[in-house]
Amino acid sequence: MPILYISRKAHFNAAHQLWIPELSEEENFEMFGKCANPNFHGHNFDLYVAVKGSPDPKTGLVMDLKILKKIINEQVVDQLDHQNLNKDVPWLSGIMPSIENIAVAMWQRIAPHLPENVTLHKITLWETQNNFVEYYGE
Amino acid sequence: MPILYISRKAHFNAAHQLWIPELSEEENFEMFGKCANPNFHGHNFDLYVAVKGSPDPKTGLVMDLKILKKIINEQVVDQLDHQNLNKDVPWLSGIMPSIENIAVAMWQRIAPHLPENVTLHKITLWETQNNFVEYYGE
Amino acid sequence: MPILYISRKAHFNAAHQLWIPELSEEENFEMFGKCANPNFHGHNFDLYVAVKGSPDPKTGLVMDLKILKKIINEQVVDQLDHQNLNKDVPWLSGIMPSIENIAVAMWQRIAPHLPENVTLHKITLWETQNNFVEYYGE
Amino acid sequence: MPILYISRKAHFNAAHQLWIPELSEEENFEMFGKCANPNFHGHNFDLYVAVKGSPDPKTGLVMDLKILKKIINEQVVDQLDHQNLNKDVPWLSGIMPSIENIAVAMWQRIAPHLPENVTLHKITLWETQNNFVEYYGE
Amino acid sequence: MPILYISRKAHFNAAHQLWIPELSEEENFEMFGKCANPNFHGHNFDLYVAVKGSPDPKTGLVMDLKILKKIINEQVVDQLDHQNLNKDVPWLSGIMPSIENIAVAMWQRIAPHLPENVTLHKITLWETQNNFVEYYGE
Amino acid sequence: MPILYISRKAHFNAAHQLWIPELSEEENFEMFGKCANPNFHGHNFDLYVAVKGSPDPKTGLVMDLKILKKIINEQVVDQLDHQNLNKDVPWLSGIMPSIENIAVAMWQRIAPHLPENVTLHKITLWETQNNFVEYYGE
Repeated sequence: MPILYISRKAHFNAAHQLWIPELSEEENFEMFGKCANPNFHGHNFDLYVAVKGSPDPKTGLVMDLKILKKIINEQVVDQLDHQNLNKDVPWLSGIMPSIENIAVAMWQRIAPHLPENVTLHKITLWETQNNFVEYYGE
Repeated sequence: MPILYISRKAHFNAAHQLWIPELSEEENFEMFGKCANPNFHGHNFDLYVAVKGSPDPKTGLVMDLKILKKIINEQVVDQLDHQNLNKDVPWLSGIMPSIENIAVAMWQRIAPHLPENVTLHKITLWETQNNFVEYYGE
Repeated sequence: MPILYISRKAHFNAAHQLWIPELSEEENFEMFGKCANPNFHGHNFDLYVAVKGSPDPKTGLVMDLKILKKIINEQVVDQLDHQNLNKDVPWLSGIMPSIENIAVAMWQRIAPHLPENVTLHKITLWETQNNFVEYYGE
Repeated sequence: MPILYISRKAHFNAAHQLWIPELSEEENFEMFGKCANPNFHGHNFDLYVAVKGSPDPKTGLVMDLKILKKIINEQVVDQLDHQNLNKDVPWLSGIMPSIENIAVAMWQRIAPHLPENVTLHKITLWETQNNFVEYYGE
Repeated sequence: MPILYISRKAHFNAAHQLWIPELSEEENFEMFGKCANPNFHGHNFDLYVAVKGSPDPKTGLVMDLKILKKIINEQVVDQLDHQNLNKDVPWLSGIMPSIENIAVAMWQRIAPHLPENVTLHKITLWETQNNFVEYYGE
Repeated sequence: MPILYISRKAHFNAAHQLWIPELSEEENFEMFGKCANPNFHGHNFDLYVAVKGSPDPKTGLVMDLKILKKIINEQVVDQLDHQNLNKDVPWLSGIMPSIENIAVAMWQRIAPHLPENVTLHKITLWETQNNFVEYYGE
């Protein structure tokens, strides 16, 4: 059976801040630049979730995208949209909300909910039109 | 001389919140939905500034876009990028930071700095890929 | 009070066909090219609805975009998405489903449902990345 | 010699339907949702074809993109554009026209026509702005 | 009859230079910055041509877009694509190839070829993702 | 530690020409089509640079994107923007400026400047909206 990678896009708008509590404001600004603004800044995040599998011989589908959309929304988007990633999200508590760390946390939340015939392949998270991160679960 | 409209794009990332202090948290959520999150949320804003004028017979240009870029950055982008629009921007103080109100405030800041041979024509401000506002100074 | 134009994007996927029943297949192909395929073809349509109004002094909003989204979905998108525009949509019955005619029909369906403080300003309907139509209700 | 992957984009507009003839209309709708509409729906499909090879020392090119464009058009796009993928395409006959199955069929049609110095690397097929499939020929 | 504006997109890749022969290299660089590079630079230009008219009662179309595409290609795109706008285009000879001047020249070439039932409404010419010009023939 | 791939976008506008000096103009046009125009043509190039690494436990970042941006600008963008790739760039001297060869040259210039904790993963270079090349350093 052929192996395919199917991706679904989602997006959410959120505030965040890059800040290390042990450091002074001056040190945080030196390390993170404007991203350390104590009053937060924000982004429109674009998320692509790719799963790997073979098309079902009858339906032709690797998986039902309505189910993938539901998993993405329930596990990550509904909890991040219009939130403050430093304060409002229990599963990001104590984690620096860089897109690197958010992508890893998303993997851990989405992977266990996928149907058995597919595996999670990649999390791609865009923070702006100019930068994004990719995570393959390794 | 022909009349042309030339536009320059800029963008900035910022946090904001729609919130009326005189109302309770419950009333604010009823009015603004998730946009009332007390811990803020944020966006990647795209801004287009259009000016109207005739091309100079020698240069062929309505205006030098390096100058337009400089005006946009100095008057609005440098003061909004990675900021909290409710807290950090003196010229938005006391103003509900909806894209409607931000666009009007941008007009007032940019128009006086344009060269004499052009006029400000339109401010277009995108908040997400799904909504934007246009303001013609009227 | 300043006057602003605020736009909300929606999209839907549909099949259609350009075909005049009184003409032969050969004449239809001559008139509409590949768009006359008797088995239909389809598009991902992008729709922008722009309304005109002044921001409310308290909320800063021309209108609540959640309400605009609801009107767009109920009046047009829910009835067009994943449908055949020649066969499945009562309010397009007997109308050639060109984007010109669809845009006019959308105006007639959306305008009566808007709140009193705004007016419908423009319907923009993209059929492909290469062509779109604009309608101002005139 | 360095190994590079060069991609060419194409696009086509088509109608399709996800439908299993052995099932009832009710069962088809349960399985495929709105995609089972018996009157079809449609999309603007975006296709990227990636080939792998080393640049020719004289021309600097992995392959002539005009030739790649010609192969893509002759083998797949000309036969899919403005067609009904369930009815009009001989090489999709008897195949559920999911993007998974279409991508696999495209691979089989394009690979034999490539010049000897390159190999087909990936077929990427976007169905909407929100979902796409990737196939590496495995 | 309703009045609609229908737009068709085209694109071309070209080299150009902003340079006034009467000025020295130093003066040209002061006036045009990097755009004065004597060896030229280039862009992927995006062009939108909007025409105004009413849909034909039988076809539902303001005009046949295949004809509009043919006019755009014959009158402007075929003569600009992969060309040097300072040297290779007779109808730009002696004209500073700014997007302002190119847009005006395009209007003059396209308008006379349109069918009688429509009028040319707007030329929109993008030079980069960050700047574009609009011309309404006035 | 998880392994992530973080990408930063840049862009530049440049002129180039595909041309082999040992061949006649006729032979060059046969080989490269319109890309052989002796007066050059040009593009808006989009560049994505992807680096591979693990997020720092304290900052959550694979690497400081301000530093990556600075390396990209100093090593490649500042030297290519608004230039003629056949004439103006010392490190492309004697190299056919195809996107294949430019991508390989970019790799060699960027890789040595990255911090020790990351490795260069991929150079992606878009020449138009319809074609791009990917290079992994192999």
